Amino acid sequence: MSRPITPVILSGGSGTRLWPMSRSSQPKQLLRLTSAETMLQLTALRSAGSDRFGPPIIVGNALHATEIQEQLEAVNATPSLLILEPVARNTAPAIALAALAALENDDDATLLVMPSDQVIEDVDAFRAAIEAALPVVEQGWLVTFGIKPTGPETGYGYILMGDPIESGVREVKQFVEKPDRKTAEQFLATGNYAWNGGIFLFRADSFLGALANQAPDIAIAVRKSIDAAGRRGRLLYPEPKSFAQSPSQSIDYAVMEKSESVAVIPVNMGWSDIGSWDALYELAAKDDFANAHHGEVISLDSNGCLIRSNGPVVAAVGVKDLIVIATGDAVLILPRGSSQDVKQIIDELKRREHRTL
Amino acid sequence: MSRPITPVILSGGSGTRLWPMSRSSQPKQLLRLTSAETMLQLTALRSAGSDRFGPPIIVGNALHATEIQEQLEAVNATPSLLILEPVARNTAPAIALAALAALENDDDATLLVMPSDQVIEDVDAFRAAIEAALPVVEQGWLVTFGIKPTGPETGYGYILMGDPIESGVREVKQFVEKPDRKTAEQFLATGNYAWNGGIFLFRADSFLGALANQAPDIAIAVRKSIDAAGRRGRLLYPEPKSFAQSPSQSIDYAVMEKSESVAVIPVNMGWSDIGSWDALYELAAKDDFANAHHGEVISLDSNGCLIRSNGPVVAAVGVKDLIVIATGDAVLILPRGSSQDVKQIIDELKRREHRTL
Repeated sequence: MSRPITPVILSGGSGTRLWPMSRSSQPKQLLRLTSAETMLQLTALRSAGSDRFGPPIIVGNALHATEIQEQLEAVNATPSLLILEPVARNTAPAIALAALAALENDDDATLLVMPSDQVIEDVDAFRAAIEAALPVVEQGWLVTFGIKPTGPETGYGYILMGDPIESGVREVKQFVEKPDRKTAEQFLATGNYAWNGGIFLFRADSFLGALANQAPDIAIAVRKSIDAAGRRGRLLYPEPKSFAQSPSQSIDYAVMEKSESVAVIPVNMGWSDIGSWDALYELAAKDDFANAHHGEVISLDSNGCLIRSNGPVVAAVGVKDLIVIATGDAVLILPRGSSQDVKQIIDELKRREHRTL
Repeated sequence: MSRPITPVILSGGSGTRLWPMSRSSQPKQLLRLTSAETMLQLTALRSAGSDRFGPPIIVGNALHATEIQEQLEAVNATPSLLILEPVARNTAPAIALAALAALENDDDATLLVMPSDQVIEDVDAFRAAIEAALPVVEQGWLVTFGIKPTGPETGYGYILMGDPIESGVREVKQFVEKPDRKTAEQFLATGNYAWNGGIFLFRADSFLGALANQAPDIAIAVRKSIDAAGRRGRLLYPEPKSFAQSPSQSIDYAVMEKSESVAVIPVNMGWSDIGSWDALYELAAKDDFANAHHGEVISLDSNGCLIRSNGPVVAAVGVKDLIVIATGDAVLILPRGSSQDVKQIIDELKRREHRTL
């Protein structure tokens, strides 16, 4: 197989788990969290600089169009197409938009679907998994990447892996929703479970065929919205009314969990979705006192802290195991290990219809 | 004695102990810390609304002239004179400026000298002490207010009180610099020591006479600077060159510790100089979880915290006994009980010549 793969980067998310840095105007994928590059840039670079990949198709939110383009051009990863969703409809319709667009130029288009807000430390392992999966993909399988669990996490979906197909790829026996801790521990003990990281490799036609079978409402609505789409250079605007009629469903729910030819390639590649400030702390480089600081931070006699600022100087003396995130208009403070409590703050901010959301 | 007393409010300080709220452009006396009024306003109101007092003379920094005037006008405490020091020379020269200016209108002027950044919760007790001290003042004594100690504080100077003169006023036996804790405890045990709170009552001529005797360099320099002063309405600009030639000395050092006729009136009036964020926490109203919050604060499952913001929303979850002070350009975080460590932050900021000082 020598045609280049088309990376499809899903940039429509507007997560609040990293508030106050992430907010609707500046979601996680547009932030610099783990390096000088933003999460979106890191994602694009993961499939750049190789003949194996063509330029990416981005599916995003019109609100972020300029920022997305500027970020990608800055790392020489200019997309072939930027599809701007008129409303958010979850991943199945977003991927369907990209699949239809890709087929316009290439009947045999193969898509590498990636969320735009994940870390993959071992890109070589990622690319090796892609190579291993390609023969199976050519046979029509929908391949998902199974992240080798590093602990009994309860925040991810799990995949029960079945018999091998070939070269490391295995059939999917079952998708399992986020388990409780005890169940997660049992999963890990078997060695047959992987995390569902939301990365996929398949032929565009295989995916659209499965979508037509399993979720025809989505297939029809998205097809209509593409047929009547507006286009301006590399920007594609799906027709809003028909797109809005699509059910809002994840690719897992709409297609993967219901289709026959679904495979998984287990891979150990230093993956993280940075789903919380605690997760970022785990990934971050730390000083001799286990502090991970970013931005203008003055830290004296403190240890075990994650302190980040994108503006104000943050001065901390004698504090321990705290998370402190400061922007010009909001400051978050909580103990390390409890960053899921940001949810409570978000709920309160929503009640206040707060300007920082 | 029926002539009104002239309040002299010293507003030249630029303390950094309440950084990041207090800074050179916005020192402590100009902040709202304990009520809807600023410390300067509270000070002016302490001697307002009574025939006993005339309008105040303010001695301050030209940098703050507009803010001082606006704050005082807002509480109907417009000063008769605002003396703008060209450079800071500590309290003895500042008070000398006010004394000379007061004598221009009233040969018998009596001055009530007050720092502009203190809390006095029991104003009635304060005014009663003034009444008690007036006969002694008329006899030429320099009277200082001796704050009844509430604990063995090591951050204040102490006054050893001697024999009674009349109606509660006692001779000063000795001024003692900030003692160590053990010494402070011994002082308290005797019952004969008071804190030196920096509030004074004396006739302008008595003070200037003592100054001429004990610190003639100051008296001469200040006299020259007043003789050549610029005037514009209620603003008085001492001539900079001569004023700068004055030694920089406190009234305690230059006059009170050396003069003969120095008396003290002990008073218990809920005094605090709010010398730290911990001191402010002690004074502040608290919720059921011992939190004292001010500004836009979202506090969930937190207790024992002082959280203040003058701009950003501060969201705290599950934290305990913390001080968090947030402005648009700086955030301070330290455990309660250690707010003297702000000094270390200030030292670091000075090294960086930081914009937030």
